[in-house]
Amino acid sequence: MQEIEEPMDTPSQDPRAAARRAWPRYEAAELGFRHYWYPVLAARQLKQKPVSLVVCGEKIVLVRDRGAVRALKDRCPHRGVPLSAGRREFPGTLSCLYHGWTFDLASGELIQALTDGPDSPVCGNPEVCVKTYPVIQKANLIWIYIGDGPPPPAETDIPETLLADDAVVEAVVERRKGNWRYAMENACDEAHAKYLHRYTPYYFFFRFPGWQTDARVAPSEDGKWLNRSSKPVFEKVHYPGLGSWPRGEFWRWLRRKPIKGSSRLPGVFAVDHHTWHDFQFFVPVDKEHHLTLQVSMTRAKGLKKALWKIRYWLFIRTLHHWLLNSREDGFIVENMDAPPEWLFRPDISIVGWRRWCEQKARRSPSDGEPISQANLHSGGAVADVVSS
Amino acid sequence: MQEIEEPMDTPSQDPRAAARRAWPRYEAAELGFRHYWYPVLAARQLKQKPVSLVVCGEKIVLVRDRGAVRALKDRCPHRGVPLSAGRREFPGTLSCLYHGWTFDLASGELIQALTDGPDSPVCGNPEVCVKTYPVIQKANLIWIYIGDGPPPPAETDIPETLLADDAVVEAVVERRKGNWRYAMENACDEAHAKYLHRYTPYYFFFRFPGWQTDARVAPSEDGKWLNRSSKPVFEKVHYPGLGSWPRGEFWRWLRRKPIKGSSRLPGVFAVDHHTWHDFQFFVPVDKEHHLTLQVSMTRAKGLKKALWKIRYWLFIRTLHHWLLNSREDGFIVENMDAPPEWLFRPDISIVGWRRWCEQKARRSPSDGEPISQANLHSGGAVADVVSS
Amino acid sequence: MQEIEEPMDTPSQDPRAAARRAWPRYEAAELGFRHYWYPVLAARQLKQKPVSLVVCGEKIVLVRDRGAVRALKDRCPHRGVPLSAGRREFPGTLSCLYHGWTFDLASGELIQALTDGPDSPVCGNPEVCVKTYPVIQKANLIWIYIGDGPPPPAETDIPETLLADDAVVEAVVERRKGNWRYAMENACDEAHAKYLHRYTPYYFFFRFPGWQTDARVAPSEDGKWLNRSSKPVFEKVHYPGLGSWPRGEFWRWLRRKPIKGSSRLPGVFAVDHHTWHDFQFFVPVDKEHHLTLQVSMTRAKGLKKALWKIRYWLFIRTLHHWLLNSREDGFIVENMDAPPEWLFRPDISIVGWRRWCEQKARRSPSDGEPISQANLHSGGAVADVVSS
Repeated sequence: MQEIEEPMDTPSQDPRAAARRAWPRYEAAELGFRHYWYPVLAARQLKQKPVSLVVCGEKIVLVRDRGAVRALKDRCPHRGVPLSAGRREFPGTLSCLYHGWTFDLASGELIQALTDGPDSPVCGNPEVCVKTYPVIQKANLIWIYIGDGPPPPAETDIPETLLADDAVVEAVVERRKGNWRYAMENACDEAHAKYLHRYTPYYFFFRFPGWQTDARVAPSEDGKWLNRSSKPVFEKVHYPGLGSWPRGEFWRWLRRKPIKGSSRLPGVFAVDHHTWHDFQFFVPVDKEHHLTLQVSMTRAKGLKKALWKIRYWLFIRTLHHWLLNSREDGFIVENMDAPPEWLFRPDISIVGWRRWCEQKARRSPSDGEPISQANLHSGGAVADVVSS
Repeated sequence: MQEIEEPMDTPSQDPRAAARRAWPRYEAAELGFRHYWYPVLAARQLKQKPVSLVVCGEKIVLVRDRGAVRALKDRCPHRGVPLSAGRREFPGTLSCLYHGWTFDLASGELIQALTDGPDSPVCGNPEVCVKTYPVIQKANLIWIYIGDGPPPPAETDIPETLLADDAVVEAVVERRKGNWRYAMENACDEAHAKYLHRYTPYYFFFRFPGWQTDARVAPSEDGKWLNRSSKPVFEKVHYPGLGSWPRGEFWRWLRRKPIKGSSRLPGVFAVDHHTWHDFQFFVPVDKEHHLTLQVSMTRAKGLKKALWKIRYWLFIRTLHHWLLNSREDGFIVENMDAPPEWLFRPDISIVGWRRWCEQKARRSPSDGEPISQANLHSGGAVADVVSS
Repeated sequence: MQEIEEPMDTPSQDPRAAARRAWPRYEAAELGFRHYWYPVLAARQLKQKPVSLVVCGEKIVLVRDRGAVRALKDRCPHRGVPLSAGRREFPGTLSCLYHGWTFDLASGELIQALTDGPDSPVCGNPEVCVKTYPVIQKANLIWIYIGDGPPPPAETDIPETLLADDAVVEAVVERRKGNWRYAMENACDEAHAKYLHRYTPYYFFFRFPGWQTDARVAPSEDGKWLNRSSKPVFEKVHYPGLGSWPRGEFWRWLRRKPIKGSSRLPGVFAVDHHTWHDFQFFVPVDKEHHLTLQVSMTRAKGLKKALWKIRYWLFIRTLHHWLLNSREDGFIVENMDAPPEWLFRPDISIVGWRRWCEQKARRSPSDGEPISQANLHSGGAVADVVSS
């Protein structure tokens, strides 16, 4: 594994300016990185009735049509009324509630303007249409492609584990305050769990490390993930000027195997809990809001599958996703106010992520760099980038 | 009837810029057209107690004084406290709650500043006064004149029908989101009712046309109204690419006589329902809000009057004004987002209204065009303007 | 007593501009005057748990530590999370909830970053620390010094009466809408009580003057206060054009001794009620909000103290502070909208206060005028300033 080693505690005179110089593409990505597939809903949330969402600043209506999922810009070109308020008048179409302008769900073409009769001259004009978005249902989730040009296969952006034949996937979707980068940086932040989540009920009976040594980040073998690692320290020690820490809490009698976290573009954080996997997707909404999709999965069939579902609904969804992620992390993400910032050693995990984005995030085809398979998966080049 | 015939489906490269070029006065009228009488309250809503309103961006306090209605700018010149919070200390006056500055309701003069004694030097200074507004009660409504110079007679701006001796007038006033022009354009929009209101309870059992042909607008004989007309099509027909529409809904067994709609400056839409008349007044509040006054009237006395009142409170006020206008139209007006826009054939009704405003809306006396009776009622000139 | 006598009723063509010219420092003090001690909490409101406040635009966390009170900037320099959400992990310190960065409450130094182990290189860097504020508990209130350089003794800014050995002090703190200057000007406004508070329950049975003559302001002997005075007029008289006023309300049979009001920088208004003293402190929060501390005190021991406390909780806190100050004055302060303004004779009390601020408000040490005792208490010079 290649490592990042650089001075973390260098004071910067103007941290905001420094941040801009260091990671200009990341700094500019207030509405996220384009040319990626983003998950936006659990499959069960999308039915016949249109659903309206904002993704990367774009207002989108999603709808299920005879099994297929469809996504269009949520705005009728006639007078700007949201199509998500419309009626499902004919199969394969969506009719604007205002005047019955009826659009083909697959192509976005205006097929008929009902209230102008079957000979309406406004139809057939290729300029009068609604933008469509590539959209697909995979791994029990709805994925939208936000970007220019023809999209890569959705599988390019879906963690492989989720696509297993026997995958059992559960998801909870929330709209939260705070820019998506705060949420993603909070997730990949190496040290925070050891203090912020110290008394969280989900881990209440488990031994909890106080800190870690040797925090590192390194790309995975396939070049898709940025893995973080460190050596946790469980012992109580003396902190000069303060006293002993962590407290020797007698009720912490359970051990758990070390868990590993990995980050991935455009904003995914995955944790391998050994018996199950946790994926958090952070999807930009606008500059001040993001979606979180907390996706849990295991590979199981029959009774094992049923037992895991019980565990999910009793413990994971309540104590882990709601209390730990939504309440504890959510409070931080809502109240974070950086830059300016002053990073410390474990923040190598954050700096590594930023540099990863800076170098690896896809560029627009119009930037002269086509989204090729090589560009998408350039595993070899990644390590150089991170360690440079 | 002179007609407007022009290409409606011409794509414009920058619709916003095109709109500005085409109708600069209408585009600028975010706060409405000045030099008109606007209705703002039902007569029964105004009593002894001051009522505060914003009309065309101006904060106004209304009050009833021994039968007469009075309107002043809702701001004490002393320290800027709203006069609408004041006390009715002496007849014919309003006293600011803060220091008892007491203003003549008719002239706006500061008669006394109570807390400075009867010899206060601040009184008698003609600069220390409150602006008054011409205001009148007619047709069971309170009307305010917003404009410069001496106002024309209020009857100039009150639909004649409302002034009949045996007029029975009922009104409901609402403050709604959305610029007043969205509300007015929605009202005079020829085609929208055929789709948006298709399943509205008020018309549930009536045959409902799917579209219309020959949409036209033309001025009324007296030059005050812009009448729209069209030939409704009730038959189910084949829409290529979709199928048959409208559905042959078996429960629609009632016929109604065609109803006609007419628009009038500064923002009135009237519908003749044969047994009763419906007037909708759209009164600008600020750039993002307007008042709607939904005024229903019939001509009746005795038992006929009582029966119509029952009909009004049971059906018109609930199903027509609340469900159809406030909920269905209100949703559209709140969510409309134009320009850009792409108009279609029936929108001749909207384009006609815009051009009518552009040419006919009163100009300020200081623009060198006095508001003369000729200017107010120039019936002859109108047709030329609309058809040009 | 030196008096201010100047024409008050001079109309100004552009009152806003005139105000700027006349009192530029006062006009600029949207966030209050700096280099003063401000009371911000009642002593009983501050315990072990951190309390977050905004004072003069600065976000501050207060905490009680083994008897002492401490105040720090409410922002961890690491990632900008509010320290007020933190844990009291070790005595004398506050630990940021996010990563356990642990700051010395007295010095603001980063003692340890818990989750980076006892050898974290981020500690010991003098640049990584949190700003502290001078803070003290006196007269049952918590006082913070907002300003540059070493503060003067807190007693400099605490009204002497509050510091008596047998002082019994009660306080209620509120956050209110409106800039602090509106609140302070409303308090020192000579005439307003005679109209605004005319029917307030607290004074309901008392004779109430209708106006006053000879309104004046003059500095106190020690130069710390600006006293206002006037001769109240209780008689009903004839106001030409209106009639007799005040009404001869038969139920007003109680007399009270005249009460005097005094203003003091940075925003204090004191009223001597003979058997008790009322202090109102107006503390800037941001441009649109302020804190009011309504502080009541008497000098008493034993039974007398107990009886006064009953009177306070039954009448003063409910009828005077809540109804009269919070509701009646609060409405005015929220709705005031000046400039423009048009002052009248009794407003000498407001003009005097503005000029007092203009001349007497402390200047920054960096302006070349050190905050010396002479500068603080220059009683001799004050009179000249006010009368000039």
